[in-house]
Amino acid sequence: RALTIGLIPADGIGREVIPAARRVLEALPSGLLAARPRFVDLDAGFEYFQRHGVALPEETLAALKGDCDGALFGAVSSPSHKVAGYSSPIVGLRKRLDLYANVRPVISGAAATASGARRAIDMLIIRENTECLYIKDEELHDGPDGRYAVAKRRISERASRRVGEMAFAMALQRDGMRRLAPEAERTWKARPKVTIVHKSNVLSVTDGLWRETVRGVHAASAQYRDAVDVEEQLVDSMVYRMFREPEAFDVVVAPNMYGDIISDGAAALVGSLGLVPSANVGDAFVVGEPVHGSAPDIAGRNIANPIAAIRSAAMLLERLGCEPAALAIYRAVDRVLADGRVATPDIGGRSTTTEVADAVCSQL
Amino acid sequence: RALTIGLIPADGIGREVIPAARRVLEALPSGLLAARPRFVDLDAGFEYFQRHGVALPEETLAALKGDCDGALFGAVSSPSHKVAGYSSPIVGLRKRLDLYANVRPVISGAAATASGARRAIDMLIIRENTECLYIKDEELHDGPDGRYAVAKRRISERASRRVGEMAFAMALQRDGMRRLAPEAERTWKARPKVTIVHKSNVLSVTDGLWRETVRGVHAASAQYRDAVDVEEQLVDSMVYRMFREPEAFDVVVAPNMYGDIISDGAAALVGSLGLVPSANVGDAFVVGEPVHGSAPDIAGRNIANPIAAIRSAAMLLERLGCEPAALAIYRAVDRVLADGRVATPDIGGRSTTTEVADAVCSQL
Ligand SMILES: CC(C)[C@H](C(=O)O)[C@@H](O)C(=O)O
Ligand SMILES: CC(C)[C@H](C(=O)O)[C@@H](O)C(=O)O
Repeated sequence: RALTIGLIPADGIGREVIPAARRVLEALPSGLLAARPRFVDLDAGFEYFQRHGVALPEETLAALKGDCDGALFGAVSSPSHKVAGYSSPIVGLRKRLDLYANVRPVISGAAATASGARRAIDMLIIRENTECLYIKDEELHDGPDGRYAVAKRRISERASRRVGEMAFAMALQRDGMRRLAPEAERTWKARPKVTIVHKSNVLSVTDGLWRETVRGVHAASAQYRDAVDVEEQLVDSMVYRMFREPEAFDVVVAPNMYGDIISDGAAALVGSLGLVPSANVGDAFVVGEPVHGSAPDIAGRNIANPIAAIRSAAMLLERLGCEPAALAIYRAVDRVLADGRVATPDIGGRSTTTEVADAVCSQL
Repeated sequence: RALTIGLIPADGIGREVIPAARRVLEALPSGLLAARPRFVDLDAGFEYFQRHGVALPEETLAALKGDCDGALFGAVSSPSHKVAGYSSPIVGLRKRLDLYANVRPVISGAAATASGARRAIDMLIIRENTECLYIKDEELHDGPDGRYAVAKRRISERASRRVGEMAFAMALQRDGMRRLAPEAERTWKARPKVTIVHKSNVLSVTDGLWRETVRGVHAASAQYRDAVDVEEQLVDSMVYRMFREPEAFDVVVAPNMYGDIISDGAAALVGSLGLVPSANVGDAFVVGEPVHGSAPDIAGRNIANPIAAIRSAAMLLERLGCEPAALAIYRAVDRVLADGRVATPDIGGRSTTTEVADAVCSQL
């Protein structure tokens, strides 16, 4: 059966990198997938909102739920002022499809650290994707000293437990894969480890519940207790340590907002946001999404790095059970990067988006 | 008149670095201060809480308000589990003394960036210090799917305006100082600039109010409009850009939690948390505080880096109007660092806390 993949380029360079990823999916040698994938073009984004008054049309949601096995999302522009009725479509998508974890692998054989040393980084950041400050429950008030606003930050046992489960399961799975791949010994970490990020020295109730619940997932499973270490890191120290000794981390699990900040920071460590993919994962659906934004400054110039989007397409295939096809894409990308001749400006090259996609296709 | 300085070492290495800073203040050549400073030893901290059931005793607050011109705070340990009745004394101190801004200079003539290049960094981070998630208004609930907790994040016009004022005023003041110091041309930025950090693409109401209010401070002053540029940066991109091109920033102003995370990240850029000072500043009082924590792993071994605490003491003097004494300390520290022979392990040396303090004293 052919996979059906929804494509939501949305704004800015999303319209360049999603077509590039599509071309790579189309170029997959037959045999790697049961059948050539089908694509469904779908609307969303701030530009769409400006024309039609809605950022995430119900038709897009209906098509995703009704027709698609998974989807790729490009990037969304932020209005520079508060716009009545506008709400981020990617945040909406995560919520409406219950894509409760955002999974971001950050990998580099040789990345710069703050100390100038080049070290192997092989981190998997798992960000809770449905709550925290992202519930967008905010109110503006008039007070005696002027206006003030209050936002609510929600942390639930249920949401914490399911991303906790995912973190420990993935730590085990990564460990299994490493054992199969002796060439990756370089990045070998003696035992799988999950780092729980929080700020419970200030938020003792919400982050207290988060930390206690994720720790509970570990404590409740003999398998996790035996095979996976668990540690905690305050979010401020996490950012500090991530830059000082990024090789110390394996799986990192964080509430939504901390996860957002940490994963952009980790991207800086491995060279460029243009390289880092992610997958928004739920029990019933998955949406691949490059970590970068819509980059209005370079949009329309065919110089955006498509690698984050291409890797996000591979993550999508992986989650849909098409590991061999995913692996072929990862390897093709690695060869293009290692070769270095075809590269976009963000990583020091002079090639176009199209040329990079072509180079990846030719390496498949 | 002699200055009276409250000393609150609190926990862990706070008890080593605060005495080191005191010795430097005592070693200041007469003439730089009107009279030798007087010191008042004060209690606070988690260890104090464990013995006495209170983390920030009222006597400490009374002594600060009644007898002291300013204070130095060491560091506070975080309990590893929620402890009934415990609340962070530094957060309490900031609130009770209305120390509404935490000012953190991050400076390095040659710091590593994510790209491996070494560049001049000269940033001043101004963190709002009284609200955001730090109001600690949290509740735990029982829901149909298990427990959930909600924290409130408060952003007010009043608190945003006063740190905004401070940010623009300091941008001008830094510019004035740079013009007087031609040797600092290296770190010269053509025009002073304030970067407003927020996440208004998600928190359109709270961070919308924050951004609009800080922008309003700029718009309302002809002097600021003429002489200071203003830009905005989403907090996730801020962490990314800070590591890719830290030399692009001048003054950075952020709500409390983002400011906490960003300043630890910035510390990683310039080498060690053990080097970065801060001042908690209000209209009526100032408390110097090294950015590092209580570091239980190295506490009691006389190897903690006292430089952050010593620089915090200099920031305290500066805010109290004793610029020549402050400058003497900054210069002595710079000479010790440039010489490099006396250094604690965190920056690659083998010296003790005491030896570093001695070296700074001998350079005064
Ligand atoms: C665009 C924005 C709402 C989004 C987020 O904060 O989640 C983005 O930064 C991301 O990380 O996918
Ligand atoms: C100890 C902790 C409460 C504190 C904070 O988050 O403000 C610390 O990280 C700091 O930055 O001074």
